[in-house]
Parts: sequence; structure tokens; C-alpha cells
Amino acid sequence: MQIEAVDFFYLSMPEVLDIGDGSQDALLVRIKVGPYVGWGECEAAPLVSIASFVCPMSHSACKPVRDSVLGQRLDEVADIARIGDLVREQSLDLLQTDHTLSGIDMAMWDVMGKKHGVPVYELLGYRTAYPKTPYASALFGDDAQATLRKARQIRDQGYRAAKFGWGPFGKGTLTDDIEQVEAAREGLGPDGILLIDAGTVWKDDVASAARRLPVLQACDVTWLEEPFVSGALDAYRTFAARSGSVKLAGGEGCHNYWMAEHMLQHAGLGYIQIDAGRIGGISVAHKVAAAAEQRSISYVNHTFTSHLALSASLQPFAGLQHHEICEYPVESKPVAWDITRDHLLPNADGQIELPKAPGLGLEPDMESIKPYLLDVEIKIGGKVLYRTPPLD
Amino acid sequence: MQIEAVDFFYLSMPEVLDIGDGSQDALLVRIKVGPYVGWGECEAAPLVSIASFVCPMSHSACKPVRDSVLGQRLDEVADIARIGDLVREQSLDLLQTDHTLSGIDMAMWDVMGKKHGVPVYELLGYRTAYPKTPYASALFGDDAQATLRKARQIRDQGYRAAKFGWGPFGKGTLTDDIEQVEAAREGLGPDGILLIDAGTVWKDDVASAARRLPVLQACDVTWLEEPFVSGALDAYRTFAARSGSVKLAGGEGCHNYWMAEHMLQHAGLGYIQIDAGRIGGISVAHKVAAAAEQRSISYVNHTFTSHLALSASLQPFAGLQHHEICEYPVESKPVAWDITRDHLLPNADGQIELPKAPGLGLEPDMESIKPYLLDVEIKIGGKVLYRTPPLD
Repeated sequence: MQIEAVDFFYLSMPEVLDIGDGSQDALLVRIKVGPYVGWGECEAAPLVSIASFVCPMSHSACKPVRDSVLGQRLDEVADIARIGDLVREQSLDLLQTDHTLSGIDMAMWDVMGKKHGVPVYELLGYRTAYPKTPYASALFGDDAQATLRKARQIRDQGYRAAKFGWGPFGKGTLTDDIEQVEAAREGLGPDGILLIDAGTVWKDDVASAARRLPVLQACDVTWLEEPFVSGALDAYRTFAARSGSVKLAGGEGCHNYWMAEHMLQHAGLGYIQIDAGRIGGISVAHKVAAAAEQRSISYVNHTFTSHLALSASLQPFAGLQHHEICEYPVESKPVAWDITRDHLLPNADGQIELPKAPGLGLEPDMESIKPYLLDVEIKIGGKVLYRTPPLD
Repeated sequence: MQIEAVDFFYLSMPEVLDIGDGSQDALLVRIKVGPYVGWGECEAAPLVSIASFVCPMSHSACKPVRDSVLGQRLDEVADIARIGDLVREQSLDLLQTDHTLSGIDMAMWDVMGKKHGVPVYELLGYRTAYPKTPYASALFGDDAQATLRKARQIRDQGYRAAKFGWGPFGKGTLTDDIEQVEAAREGLGPDGILLIDAGTVWKDDVASAARRLPVLQACDVTWLEEPFVSGALDAYRTFAARSGSVKLAGGEGCHNYWMAEHMLQHAGLGYIQIDAGRIGGISVAHKVAAAAEQRSISYVNHTFTSHLALSASLQPFAGLQHHEICEYPVESKPVAWDITRDHLLPNADGQIELPKAPGLGLEPDMESIKPYLLDVEIKIGGKVLYRTPPLD
């Protein structure tokens, strides 16, 4: 079978707000391979990923992603890795490449699952997909009172774990942050798993992050996520040496296997968080999960978008029983929710289970996404390089 | 003063060939700040960098680069770092960002140099710009005979150092590679500094690279460049431990300070090669040069495009006397050559000197670049997001 078509659909809320909510737009990828249609999703900056797929070649190591995908044979699972390697080689100097490849890789796994009639995690070698404990992923409220209300609501919805992040955290006074963390703990109750996400706010400034340690420890916070940017390995390691019961989490910024490996080796992490929509798809995420398992570092998905992306991001560590928790967006904008008809809802035990249907097990809903579709047109020298394809 | 305009000009040869020659297109950046006009250049994939400048916001950490640049105050040198930090923060999840910022950063330094009436290297704190020994940077010929002719030509042109790379190297048999390296050495003569660039061909496969070590040592090759991809630090370090007189060079793939720092720390490099058009501009390149100096690793520019880019890439290490050699493209396509009227030609000693004129010291030639200008238009929902501005 050949990859006959790769189509991108840029979906967006009518208004995108200046908040740390990654569910406000989406780039859906559809591939057609023989009788099969596969779906995937690239994280963030849809127009830029589209441009990287169709741009003119700059030189032999800076080709559009399209050149390494369209027309390729996709008969077996091994072809996915071959195509991924070809993309990375031929688009080496095109920085956006890994994000673009991510959605294509997911769609190739979806196709292979459909061809073999099994869920993706079985193709990855897992016999079982263990249910994961979802943490409700939410933004900090504008003040401690708002966070308290959010945390209570999450507890009332039955979640045993919650993460609060972004918003004002780390941007105001130390007292503001202390009140925010205390409010989250109070609202979630003493038994809930509480996670805090600093959204890289201190870049590589260990001292500023360390000033929050007493309240994080007092409030029994399980992890502090991304106090620093992904590359600041020394800052991570220095902080980890003194953070005691509060573990470090990070890695969502990794856009290739190497970056994740460096974090596993040098950052002193307790948890590595991988976004399959950024790192190069399910293939690379799975490789990171195996490396994390070897180092006894917990693998966690990073997902803030649709349930299609959620399924894709859970597959890579579905069979790793001791990697127990998963990110689960609870404040998604309608565009993210409406991408699929079916959703991965908590079961009676409050756990998230992957679908047993072939591939990713979730299909986009053409009718419900139509209102969000943006018409994109890119022309060079009067010639159309890209135009949003029809949704049919 | 405010940054009132940022314009991108996508220049290209009429035909771009599928070879490892990065001089076939260019993305020129012009900024207007009060009475000053500054110029810079982003490396590779012009359309994608343009898209990253104008794309709609996805969320608060995935904004178009434009949002952090246009309208910003640029009064003093310190403003350049502030704007760079703002771009990295607000476009954290937009992968292409660092490449786009690179050209803007150069243009900001150009403006500051013009405002203060001094070359950029003085603003960086260097009293003197030491002349550098250029190595003629060329592609391997299709076979050893072609490489021999190229190497003789380079020697006859007076170059004391030459680098051969890409083309068939590493892609055929071991014997092919041996003949290529021997031909390069023969053509260059026994006294020339010979450098070999493997163009990441072995990804992270140390054994394949190591099979070339005997010929590299026998031919007195000074460095082997990029046997592996930038992230494969373990492969670099393992190879370095056994490469003896042949030093490792790498780093052109680094697109932020952290990646370069990881290579300096963990890759066993003899030379770190930074492309100011990729890593975030002169600002980040200069920070890497200082870190390299501290570790006694030689800093070298990576430049395969115009002489505007060459000037920008030499400024960060101009004042580091013991970092002696510089990459110097000798096979540039007309589009790269024609971007500036003046060029950085070897002096009587065969050395390259930076201009003493303010800023980058070279101005684009509007008339000569006009024939290469591509008209780009990007529309979303029928609304024009970007259209190539007039060259005036």
C-alpha cells in the first residue's frame, strides 16, 4: 500500500484567548493508504506545520515534510520507522519538522492498527492496556479563591488527582503562589494527588523555584512540573537534589528522542512528560517510554487537546503497569471536545481505559468539526502551494 | 525608539537542486527602528519562518513571533536580550521560533551598531576583531576525481584550509569514502588544513563512523564534522574517546543555547560550530562562544549563505584570538552572493576581516536581489495574513 494523500485540517475556536489553554485550536491530519484512512493530530501552531509540509525545498537536508511521506510504501509497522527516519533526514534543517511528523506518525499507526484489526498498543508489543489514573489538568484560577473553587469542583467530579498550572503562578509574589498552592490543596482535600505546573516560568533560576519548596512540601505536592525550560538540565538537577518529597516533572518541550534522553540522564526527574503530538508521534514517544522504564522514571503523557490526541498519547505507555497516572484535560474548549464523537471517559473506578477498537479507536466527527475549520491558502509566485481540502 | 516594521524577503534561485548546498535560497529580514534600518538573515525554510511570524495565536505560549517584536522599544543593547527572552517565552511551543528569531536578532544588532556608530563586535565587548583563517567550504565531488579537481582549485585560489562534505560521503562503500578523503588531501597538498563533514550521515552509529578513522588519521584530517545528529551526545563522546588526532566538530543543528551547552558538556568536541541564523541570532551565538572559550573548545561559525550572514556569524567570536578558523563558502549560488554589494574577501594574508563600518557593515543590494524575490501570500479565512512587501 502507498500513502496516497496527507491532508491537514486547521480547526480553531472563533476566538483564541491569551491563556495557557492548548485546546483552543488543533491541526488534524488525515492520511489515505489503500483502503484505509488514518487520523492524527499535531500539537500547536497549525499554520506553521502546514507550511513545513508544503514549503519549497531549500536544499537536500531541508525538504518539505511532504517529500518524505507522500507516495511512500506503508505495508508493515516497520515502514513507520523508516518513513520517520526519512523525514528527519530530509528535513533535518527544517525546525518545525518534528511537530508536523508527530500527527503523521499517529495517523500511520492508526492505519496499521486498522489493517491488522488491533489497537495500536498491541502493535507496540503490549498485551494489555492498563487503566490509568487520570489527573484533572486545569489552569490556576486568577486568584486563590478561584483556584479553591476549581479544586473543589474537580474533587466533586470524582477525580483523585489534579494538576494546576500556568495562569498567575510564579508571576506575582511568593505569597500569591503560597496561597494558590494552599487553595488547591484545600479544595482537593487531604487525600488527593496534587500536582503543580510552573510552565517554565523561572527559565533556569533555581533560587526562585526553591523559594516555593516549603509550601510545596507542606501541601504534599507530588510533583513540581517545568519550573525551568526543557534544556536547563543543570537547573533541574540542582533543584532535584534539594526538593525532597517533591519530585520534578518535565519533558513536554522535547521534540525528539535525544532531548528526552538528555532529560532522563541529566535532569533528576521523577516523571517525564511526553507530548506525542510534538516529539515525533507515537513511535518516538514509545521509545522514550521504554527508556524511562529502564531508568525507573515514570512516564506520563502530556495532552491538552482532543481525545484523539489523548488516545495517541496513551498508547506509548499503555502496557507499562507501574506508570500509573495520565494527564486528562477537563477544561477543553469545544473545538477539542468536538473532534471525536466518542470520548475516553473515566470508568466506574475513575480510571481511563484505551479503546479496544482497531488503531487509535476514535474517529473524527466530520459534521461536528466543520464549524471550526479554517480555510488556509498559501501561494508562492501566484501558484497555490496549499489550500484547505474539503472535509469529506 | 520602537520596532516599527519587520519585513521578510524570500529569495531563491529559479531552480533549487537536491544537493547539500544551503546557498540556494535565503530569508532576508529587514527591521525599521526610528531612523535606522537593520538587516539579518534566517537560515533555511523561508516559508516556514514567515508562517511562524504571522500565524494566529494557538495559546499564551504559542504566539506568532510578531507579537513579541513589533512595537517593542529598542533603545539600548540590553533591549535585544529582553526581546529575545520575550519571543522564547511567548512562542515556547512554536518550534520554528528560534530560526525566525535568528534573523530578527541580527537585524536588531545591526540597528544598534548603526545607532552607536560602531561594528557589532564592539557592542559585544570586543576591542578588536581578529582576522580569521577561512576554510573553503565545498561539497564533495560526485567521485574522487571530481573532489581532487575541486581541492586543487581551492589550493590554487590560495586557501590554506578546506572542508569537504555531504555529497556521496558515507552513503556508498567504505572504499568510496577512503578514495574521497585521499583525493581531498592530495588536491589540497600536504600542508593544507583538511576538514571532513559527514553531514550526520551515521545518525548515532559509532561503528560506521569509526571505520573511517584510519583514513582520516592517515590523511591528517583536523576534524570530522557531524558524524552524528546533534542530539546523539553519547555517540559523539564515545567516538571522541577513540578518535585520537582527529577532533570532533559539531553543533550547527543547535537551535538554542541549551543544546549547545549540552554538546560542550557531553559530546567531547574539539570544535563547536554555531549557525547564528539558527541558534537565535548573534546574542545566543555570543553566549555559546563565551562558554566554548571557558571550556577550551574552539568556536567556529557555520555559514553557507550570504556575506551578510557571514558577517553576522563572525561577530560572536571576532574578539576571541585563539579561535582562529572560520567557515567561508566558496561555491555560493548567485542568490547568496548577490544579496550584498560588498563582500568579505580574503586580505593579502588570505585572512578574513570583519568590516569596521557600523552594525554588520554590509548592506543588501536592493537592485541585485530583486530577480530572486518570491511573491508569497498567506490567507486564512480569505483574509491576507502575509504578502511579500515591496523592496524599497
